[in-house]
Amino acid sequence: MMRMVEIIAAKRDGRALTTAEIEWVVQGYAAGEIPDYQMAALAMAIVLRGMDDRETADLTMAIARSGDMLDLHDVAPLTVDKHSTGGVGDKTTLVLAPMVAAVGLPVAKMSGRGLGFSGGTIDKLESIPGFRANLSAEEFRRAVREPGLVVAAQSGDLAPADKKLYALRDVTATVESIPLIAASVMSKKLAAGADCIVLDVKYGRGAFMHTLDDARQLARTMVAIGRHAGRKVTAVISSMQQPLGFAIGNALEVREAVAALCGSGPSDLVELCLVLGSELVCMAGLRDDPDTARALLVEALSSGAAWEKFRAMVANQDGDVTTLDHPDRLPNAPVQVDLAAPRAGFVTAIDGQTLGFVVNALGGGRVRKEDTIDHSVGLVLRAKVGARVAAGDPLVTIHAARQSDVDAVAERLANAYTIHDTPPPSLPLVEEIIR
Amino acid sequence: MMRMVEIIAAKRDGRALTTAEIEWVVQGYAAGEIPDYQMAALAMAIVLRGMDDRETADLTMAIARSGDMLDLHDVAPLTVDKHSTGGVGDKTTLVLAPMVAAVGLPVAKMSGRGLGFSGGTIDKLESIPGFRANLSAEEFRRAVREPGLVVAAQSGDLAPADKKLYALRDVTATVESIPLIAASVMSKKLAAGADCIVLDVKYGRGAFMHTLDDARQLARTMVAIGRHAGRKVTAVISSMQQPLGFAIGNALEVREAVAALCGSGPSDLVELCLVLGSELVCMAGLRDDPDTARALLVEALSSGAAWEKFRAMVANQDGDVTTLDHPDRLPNAPVQVDLAAPRAGFVTAIDGQTLGFVVNALGGGRVRKEDTIDHSVGLVLRAKVGARVAAGDPLVTIHAARQSDVDAVAERLANAYTIHDTPPPSLPLVEEIIR
Repeated sequence: MMRMVEIIAAKRDGRALTTAEIEWVVQGYAAGEIPDYQMAALAMAIVLRGMDDRETADLTMAIARSGDMLDLHDVAPLTVDKHSTGGVGDKTTLVLAPMVAAVGLPVAKMSGRGLGFSGGTIDKLESIPGFRANLSAEEFRRAVREPGLVVAAQSGDLAPADKKLYALRDVTATVESIPLIAASVMSKKLAAGADCIVLDVKYGRGAFMHTLDDARQLARTMVAIGRHAGRKVTAVISSMQQPLGFAIGNALEVREAVAALCGSGPSDLVELCLVLGSELVCMAGLRDDPDTARALLVEALSSGAAWEKFRAMVANQDGDVTTLDHPDRLPNAPVQVDLAAPRAGFVTAIDGQTLGFVVNALGGGRVRKEDTIDHSVGLVLRAKVGARVAAGDPLVTIHAARQSDVDAVAERLANAYTIHDTPPPSLPLVEEIIR
Repeated sequence: MMRMVEIIAAKRDGRALTTAEIEWVVQGYAAGEIPDYQMAALAMAIVLRGMDDRETADLTMAIARSGDMLDLHDVAPLTVDKHSTGGVGDKTTLVLAPMVAAVGLPVAKMSGRGLGFSGGTIDKLESIPGFRANLSAEEFRRAVREPGLVVAAQSGDLAPADKKLYALRDVTATVESIPLIAASVMSKKLAAGADCIVLDVKYGRGAFMHTLDDARQLARTMVAIGRHAGRKVTAVISSMQQPLGFAIGNALEVREAVAALCGSGPSDLVELCLVLGSELVCMAGLRDDPDTARALLVEALSSGAAWEKFRAMVANQDGDVTTLDHPDRLPNAPVQVDLAAPRAGFVTAIDGQTLGFVVNALGGGRVRKEDTIDHSVGLVLRAKVGARVAAGDPLVTIHAARQSDVDAVAERLANAYTIHDTPPPSLPLVEEIIR
């Protein structure tokens, strides 16, 4: 007979919890038998005392097993998935998923909606008229088989203990813990059933992980969890010095993704997708090394195969593909106003978090879960980090529903830009790959 | 506008909380506006990150102010109080309080009932037929004036936030924190209104503090709280190597206290009372140094003044004083059996905690708050630490309601004694005094 107070005391005193203890805690908490106040004390003890890799893997598996565990092997011998630790203007999934599906790797991805300053892939796809993200389990499985690419809202009961625990952590200042973050991310990925998972781990101001060291530790922890669980997992660490590409906002990002799939995408976005995709190709055993994997993916882009895969997915999920062929038919904001540079110089930093809040304020994101969003609004960057601007040059174009919204955000938006007399050091896009 | 999650995060990150933050947390928690899960996370962060003296004093004052703050200056210009961090067989209050009251220091003491392995002064006094511990606020104040000595159950609404917080700490493994323990003890003492407070801080196996270092830190913290609050506080640190005196159990301890007040008490009990009492006499300004203070108290004992004060208190609280004059009329257990030493040697340790649990098992204590207790049962030690015993010599006399109770505890009781071939080092009773 286990006692929660003794388990809390053990972690408080720095002892590693046993597999059985962790399993008992997660089951009891999910079942409502362990009260929030005991779980909160344990979570704080974990934040301050940590968990080793074995404990973290046990916690992840226990959370994954708290609900359905998808098994897709009857519809595809091998499926792939990706996860990003989040970022403003992150449309990576929209480009990466069709690219790897085009080379023959079925992508089975459950995705979230945006909340707070970061957007959600589902919201972006829903700016395509008719697009359906809420698929039945049967529809999801069928789509993995054909067209071999599906991006859907979470269906079924995946990792319900994570949902409950995350809500508690959010109000008890126990979010900032690498083992708890890793277990939260990986429990959902493991429950979703993919065999090979690539993780896009961001660091920097506005990212979940503030330093490269933290990002590296999180990446290592998640890769180790994958190993414990018998999945292939690779993590690509990149700095979130500024948003990826130029567009922020749902329809604006779909347009940018379409451009990338058609061969005219922003170079940072395309580069990151090629790096992430190469890891999936290698993990899946399609190619032996990242260079030949990359060549395969470049070919899928230039041949139009990736673009066709994207159209097939949108069509399969009832989206109007003519809006992809004619992106001007995607939702358009009536007001488009440039924000001018207040002085000449080099753009040395763009605060993505502030840009995310600005898009929210324009109506393009959610403050509360139940908010509806305006898919047309957002921002298009005109000068990125490193750009030389003259005073009065456009820094960013604001896409808004009305002029008063532009006026309300202009000052805050201007403050997101740092302009100096000297150019900033150039940072590599990808810092490190942890396999 | 304060946010609890930010306050928890601050303590999690090792920042000292401000006076206003601490006040806001305690008020909000007492009012039920801050939920248990947030308080539990904060408590764990305090356990692991600590609190400095200023924070601890602020916490103590905020808890004290969560209910009534007694002011006794209208009934006595100066009152004294004592607190013990708890111990098995601790009848110090029964001897110390009449002694200092006899030299003219009004004692206004609220005391608790026993729970778990440690007994409570109120339970001990209630073994005197008729004794009333539940006094009205008016009766309490009147008794401070005349006879100048009162020991009562907590009346009114003293430090209600402490009660709520302690119940939460008990189930979240957040009891073991010196700032939280100090704030809990001192908030009640400050609310109870005494001007001079002596603290009897025990350490050792079975005490709350396991090491001298911990006891010293707790004592220093409580003395510092007193200073912040404008009260005089001294702490006497003593080891709890074994129970004080010989008797454990309610009526048995009253008999031993009566003997001490009549001049034939166990030397360790009398000595500790003289040390604690001298501190009160000096703090109150009756004498300038511990030696002359001690002489005053010895005179109060030998003249019978302390004994008369005790009789007056019992009479004032409706107790039958004839049972004090004829202690054999106090509750007597029908079965009295000696436990024999299993081998010859020196008694090197007696585990007080085990003795406490044995008295509980005999019916002399409570496991749950609502349990009723048998005042007659208990233990009388026949050999204390350092005693040389032959095999078969009595170690302890068991006072029980029936023979089956004796049989049920005998083995456990025997295991509480350690007997070696060589005598143990002799330890000083009082380790240190912190003023």
